[in-house]
Amino acid sequence: MNIDKYPSRLLENAVNEFAKLPGIGRKSALRLVLHLLRQNPEDVAVFGNSLIELRNEIKHCKVCHNISDTEICKICSNPARHTNVICVVENIRDVMSVENTQQFNGLYHVLGGIISPMDGIGPSELEIDSLVERVENGEIIEVIMALSTTMEGDTTNFYIYRKLKDKSVKLSTLARGVSIGDELEYIDEITLGRSLMNRVLYESSVEK
Amino acid sequence: MNIDKYPSRLLENAVNEFAKLPGIGRKSALRLVLHLLRQNPEDVAVFGNSLIELRNEIKHCKVCHNISDTEICKICSNPARHTNVICVVENIRDVMSVENTQQFNGLYHVLGGIISPMDGIGPSELEIDSLVERVENGEIIEVIMALSTTMEGDTTNFYIYRKLKDKSVKLSTLARGVSIGDELEYIDEITLGRSLMNRVLYESSVEK
Repeated sequence: MNIDKYPSRLLENAVNEFAKLPGIGRKSALRLVLHLLRQNPEDVAVFGNSLIELRNEIKHCKVCHNISDTEICKICSNPARHTNVICVVENIRDVMSVENTQQFNGLYHVLGGIISPMDGIGPSELEIDSLVERVENGEIIEVIMALSTTMEGDTTNFYIYRKLKDKSVKLSTLARGVSIGDELEYIDEITLGRSLMNRVLYESSVEK
Repeated sequence: MNIDKYPSRLLENAVNEFAKLPGIGRKSALRLVLHLLRQNPEDVAVFGNSLIELRNEIKHCKVCHNISDTEICKICSNPARHTNVICVVENIRDVMSVENTQQFNGLYHVLGGIISPMDGIGPSELEIDSLVERVENGEIIEVIMALSTTMEGDTTNFYIYRKLKDKSVKLSTLARGVSIGDELEYIDEITLGRSLMNRVLYESSVEK
């Protein structure tokens, strides 16, 4: 169905705006706009203003560059967290992913992307210098690299490794291995090979 | 992944608002909000305002109840259209669907829904009285019922049929039959049965 003849300019504008969002086509956009038309004007105003307010007022934490409502984010200003371990991630969503594991109680450093020459993103576009500064000036014991296992992620990993290897700080990366729930026959050979190399000994069997 | 710990209240508000839209879950909402965060503040303001403006300023055509920027919509006020044929549809989207066929040059009447006791929608919630009024007061030759072939659509069809059957107006409904591109073996027996009953004679064969 070709739906280019909108009965109203206002409708068309709203559909155009929605259709700019990733993963939303013109048909979905129309469905969303017609849904909004059935809501109270007050509720739609709250929606529209929440977006405007978000974009205008959100800040980035001066320490870790995560998004925040304040100058220093909730994680960096939390006295219960270990300030001497930094987990380096690509973006805001990765912070949330790691937080949801509830396995990490240190601080973060959000790079704001990864090195990707194809997309024109070099080290200078990322928050790498500020990471080096944090390591030099703070009492950091360990930097955990938690980047994607893609070529770009590995490149960024290596770049940061070279920048930090001479500082007095432990460097580590996430364990690579078989995901929980994976069936062996579907795992690629590199992952499986690494999982064999880095196999974990059952402690009880070591004593024998 | 459970992503309930948002680093910012503003972010959380925007995600909550997006997640209220039909078919958008919290993960998609977060993706859309992070996309907006990467856009210019001006563009996001245009987006937000287009929604507010839409809801506050859009009108419904006084004649056909389609949405419109003006008191009388573009279709009803178009002098090139036949004003004596009315196509009755459920909603705004159906107007667009019929318009896109480019096979109809009359006017519309948007009911604003169909009779559905399950959803608490009775005839009084719909623009049925105003349709009867149009037929009584205007010089209408034909009313084409273009509703869905569901139980609710058929009920609405029948209700309107009873209201209009004694007026001096032709009543018709969309042809039921085999969709273009359908394979016979997958068609339900009711559609196939009706298609047989309402079969179309090749004109050349009639002369024999």
